[in-house]
Amino acid sequence: MVQGKLNEQAKGVFIIAATPFTDEGALDLYSIDSLTDFYLGCGVHGFTLLGMMGEAHKLTAEESLTVVTRVIARAQGRQVIVGASHAGLENVRRLAHEAMVAGAAGVMVAPPQGLKGDDGVYNYYAQVFKELGPDIPVVYQDYPQTTGVYLAPSVFERLVDDFKQLVMLKHEDAPGLAKLTRVREGEKKPGRRRVSILVGNGGLYYPQEMQRGADGAMTGFAWPEMLVQVYDLFAAGKSSEAEDLFDLYLPLVRHEQQPSIGLALRKEVLFRRGAIRSPKQRVPGSSLTATDRAELDSLTARLERRLAAAGRPSRIAAE
Amino acid sequence: MVQGKLNEQAKGVFIIAATPFTDEGALDLYSIDSLTDFYLGCGVHGFTLLGMMGEAHKLTAEESLTVVTRVIARAQGRQVIVGASHAGLENVRRLAHEAMVAGAAGVMVAPPQGLKGDDGVYNYYAQVFKELGPDIPVVYQDYPQTTGVYLAPSVFERLVDDFKQLVMLKHEDAPGLAKLTRVREGEKKPGRRRVSILVGNGGLYYPQEMQRGADGAMTGFAWPEMLVQVYDLFAAGKSSEAEDLFDLYLPLVRHEQQPSIGLALRKEVLFRRGAIRSPKQRVPGSSLTATDRAELDSLTARLERRLAAAGRPSRIAAE
Amino acid sequence: MVQGKLNEQAKGVFIIAATPFTDEGALDLYSIDSLTDFYLGCGVHGFTLLGMMGEAHKLTAEESLTVVTRVIARAQGRQVIVGASHAGLENVRRLAHEAMVAGAAGVMVAPPQGLKGDDGVYNYYAQVFKELGPDIPVVYQDYPQTTGVYLAPSVFERLVDDFKQLVMLKHEDAPGLAKLTRVREGEKKPGRRRVSILVGNGGLYYPQEMQRGADGAMTGFAWPEMLVQVYDLFAAGKSSEAEDLFDLYLPLVRHEQQPSIGLALRKEVLFRRGAIRSPKQRVPGSSLTATDRAELDSLTARLERRLAAAGRPSRIAAE
Amino acid sequence: MVQGKLNEQAKGVFIIAATPFTDEGALDLYSIDSLTDFYLGCGVHGFTLLGMMGEAHKLTAEESLTVVTRVIARAQGRQVIVGASHAGLENVRRLAHEAMVAGAAGVMVAPPQGLKGDDGVYNYYAQVFKELGPDIPVVYQDYPQTTGVYLAPSVFERLVDDFKQLVMLKHEDAPGLAKLTRVREGEKKPGRRRVSILVGNGGLYYPQEMQRGADGAMTGFAWPEMLVQVYDLFAAGKSSEAEDLFDLYLPLVRHEQQPSIGLALRKEVLFRRGAIRSPKQRVPGSSLTATDRAELDSLTARLERRLAAAGRPSRIAAE
Repeated sequence: MVQGKLNEQAKGVFIIAATPFTDEGALDLYSIDSLTDFYLGCGVHGFTLLGMMGEAHKLTAEESLTVVTRVIARAQGRQVIVGASHAGLENVRRLAHEAMVAGAAGVMVAPPQGLKGDDGVYNYYAQVFKELGPDIPVVYQDYPQTTGVYLAPSVFERLVDDFKQLVMLKHEDAPGLAKLTRVREGEKKPGRRRVSILVGNGGLYYPQEMQRGADGAMTGFAWPEMLVQVYDLFAAGKSSEAEDLFDLYLPLVRHEQQPSIGLALRKEVLFRRGAIRSPKQRVPGSSLTATDRAELDSLTARLERRLAAAGRPSRIAAE
Repeated sequence: MVQGKLNEQAKGVFIIAATPFTDEGALDLYSIDSLTDFYLGCGVHGFTLLGMMGEAHKLTAEESLTVVTRVIARAQGRQVIVGASHAGLENVRRLAHEAMVAGAAGVMVAPPQGLKGDDGVYNYYAQVFKELGPDIPVVYQDYPQTTGVYLAPSVFERLVDDFKQLVMLKHEDAPGLAKLTRVREGEKKPGRRRVSILVGNGGLYYPQEMQRGADGAMTGFAWPEMLVQVYDLFAAGKSSEAEDLFDLYLPLVRHEQQPSIGLALRKEVLFRRGAIRSPKQRVPGSSLTATDRAELDSLTARLERRLAAAGRPSRIAAE
Repeated sequence: MVQGKLNEQAKGVFIIAATPFTDEGALDLYSIDSLTDFYLGCGVHGFTLLGMMGEAHKLTAEESLTVVTRVIARAQGRQVIVGASHAGLENVRRLAHEAMVAGAAGVMVAPPQGLKGDDGVYNYYAQVFKELGPDIPVVYQDYPQTTGVYLAPSVFERLVDDFKQLVMLKHEDAPGLAKLTRVREGEKKPGRRRVSILVGNGGLYYPQEMQRGADGAMTGFAWPEMLVQVYDLFAAGKSSEAEDLFDLYLPLVRHEQQPSIGLALRKEVLFRRGAIRSPKQRVPGSSLTATDRAELDSLTARLERRLAAAGRPSRIAAE
Repeated sequence: MVQGKLNEQAKGVFIIAATPFTDEGALDLYSIDSLTDFYLGCGVHGFTLLGMMGEAHKLTAEESLTVVTRVIARAQGRQVIVGASHAGLENVRRLAHEAMVAGAAGVMVAPPQGLKGDDGVYNYYAQVFKELGPDIPVVYQDYPQTTGVYLAPSVFERLVDDFKQLVMLKHEDAPGLAKLTRVREGEKKPGRRRVSILVGNGGLYYPQEMQRGADGAMTGFAWPEMLVQVYDLFAAGKSSEAEDLFDLYLPLVRHEQQPSIGLALRKEVLFRRGAIRSPKQRVPGSSLTATDRAELDSLTARLERRLAAAGRPSRIAAE
């Protein structure tokens, strides 16, 4: 499938894809396909593979490449971003090259733990960019809750000024609304490029972030059609309607973004919606109790009632 | 004001009170009174003072005591819990004794950073309980996001079994729903006391936590009447209505629980609602930009529209 | 006692004083005096009070002031630096003013946990300096192992350029040798002040740090005469002799700098040397087992044999 | 090469081998051989590969296997332990199996970040042991400074009681002397196995740890002959002589154990001693300045003078 390279104009919803396993823990190729189809059916504009949510750290190198190749082949030309973070720069380069050769649109790199100070962050990415060269588009994954590395807006600006292959910020600091606004204001400086900003944190602040200048979402919420519909409504200038729709789903957005248990919830929903054949995670992973399932039943039933009452049955359910 | 000591039967909403300052940064005694009245008007069942949200660490010892004394005097007999966490045990004792002499119903103690392993946690609290003696009721504040100290359910059970002055768990781990259920199940063991559990995390999972056996909330949400109404509805067996009401406020619950900026938002709301004369925090603290204020305007307006549409104007607004 | 204010020319050994308690845990005023005399007998050039090693966080405000006043009164004019770190800036100001009124030469301030990025550090200290005004000399305590806050050399330089009350760096990053060299090289820039740098980390890299431009040590090693003698030998240009002497003590320097147990070891040595009447720490604190004591016996006996063999009995032992 | 499996009787020095690269960053097979010979010439009793010091995280899976295979082939029958830590349990199993098939004597597993409480640690290792089965000997790597996971002695004992494949503790907590003593005392309980304990932390407390019951060292000090000679002296009952010898090297032990810069120092020493052809690390890594090199020159010259004066020229230098 031909897909162009990622650039600063990237917009919309890049779903962070779960990685499906069989009940025995093997990579489930069939479910990779059905999940890709599910996401396409939800209208996503692109994919992000091998992120933290994708259990990338539990895959072998071969399995990782299998996932990437398989999704790209089935993505109907949608752009695919592949996570290439690694503690060693040689491995970042290798992962990035493998992904690009397989047809990825770009790679996403988070900083390794232990970088010190603004210069530590700048210098690490300068090394990454030199190593990868100008032809591989890169997404900066700003997720300090896990990496422990703070990205100052001024550092991001220096990187944008100095390396044109930096085309997107995956925005996931918390609190992060002020940073998003600050980056957008900094871009008004003559000569500075405006980069794409997609937001994470499970979408918890999605409407606020769109108002502040985000270009869409990159997260793994298990009702991706909401992410798409909210994006479309914002694109159509209907921000109030967008937020109304978002708020209908907010109880589940909040529920899924719980650390650690969140992935179990998302895989369970994807399983219930028929997108994958098993909700299993590879160990060590979280799992759901009977209480957790009943709670999810209740939240889901509430969502469906509210969607129906609002005249907004989910696109999927309607099929 | 006479108020009994805190015990295992404690229920309802113990609001975590903000500490009001003047624009110049002095303790604002007038606003302490008006804020106390505001909370009482919202129907809170009790107060928690000198928690992290109360900027306790920015007060002098004298100021802390002033806050405690002043709120207790005006609390119309509602129970007041006072934070007594400190790196040194002598200071925990001193703070606890001062609070109890001033009329507190009990004290809340979080573990100091650096405790190691299950025994490290047990032994620290065993020391605290011995130091305080059996007559001072204690709340265990379980907030590992800040303390870095994990409380295993089995450790909590050992403490409950061994020290009857431990009467409440302030439940704020994340994810924490499973822990809450686990503690409630452990209490079914013959001979074990059932303690009170009040929940925090800004109330983000309040309905789910009530379903799982919580006795109420201890948090600082700036529309405390919601916390009270949800509690009352659960108490009346109307859990679905309770969750409907909660969901109306959820966009603001989520907005306020952002780390770091959350307190600025709460003080701004309390200021707008007339409860305090200035939203100022002592430095170092967060503050709001024009964008932040406009965003809050929008979220608040949406809340009011939704409450009106639901026939549920806020108790305060109705006065 | 008259002592001038601290300035950039400060040199020598500023001993971090332990805080002595009775076996019952009360502040031991008698031992404060005898310990001060002990340190003076070791030849220290100054004192640092209420640091982390001084169990400052276990004292009440009144006790802290008692310690400061008592040591200053007995310090025979030696300069005394007082720790004034606190989570709230109002309290930093209060502690600093109290210390200066009591006769301190300056105050030491560590950054609070949670500062973000280079600007976060700069802005915090800019606030501190504005709050304290130009007349209170300040030591920047750079101890990221505990604070989690990294000080970039360029940030330190901006602070030195902008605030003349910043007169000393307490150097305790790890690894930190490169930073020390970097700061000294940066000072060659025309117009930049050269500040005093005293080193910590229990003195573990003291000779290397003196070679790289340190002006002395600020640490709590329980044989302070070594710190003084090494300083004197360096001042006399005898760096090789200085390192020979240091190496004799290195087994104990290394032993005492163990996290957590280190203070118990230091207080035990001070107790054995007659400087304080009890090695007790306030709880929560570490304590020594019989095995720990026997090990310390052995290490101390080895030290004494080596000092004797080198013709360098400790100044104290010789009295 | 035939080497038996690792068991509880393991003793002596298991050197943590550096991984040599060419100046261009490629794996240097020639230097793997020469380094292995160097270590054998120092008298080491075994090897540990792919630890943190071995830059394992910067290797590809193929390179890792190359290192393992190459060292085992050249190790003259000495036992080789291979690091098999990974965030995903599938990968732990795969790495362990590959290592054992290649001829390793056992594998070393550190806990992943984020385990919670005593049960979290126990349950993770119980999973690991079940996954690996009873035939793969396992070393528990206890290095909380990096993993953030505390191992309580009682948890270690439960694991030793329940899983006989757990044969060794790599002891590297800090402070850790008390834990070592505590584990040895716990082993006196009838029926409990005594496991091997090898110590790390760069050897900083090696004599004290041998006195407390350690069976040797597992660390990467660049003068491994000292580690061996100290072990031999302890084995011969000459503990005082052992400590005398250790103290001669202590300035360099201390120098090398500096976080982050330590590996650059070790590789430089190995390079200077002719063990490897380049001191290069893969990026991101530390490197030495001219000042760092001059400092190392000075420390090394001092060591040589002291060894000569003590009549103890290094075994290597004497060849």
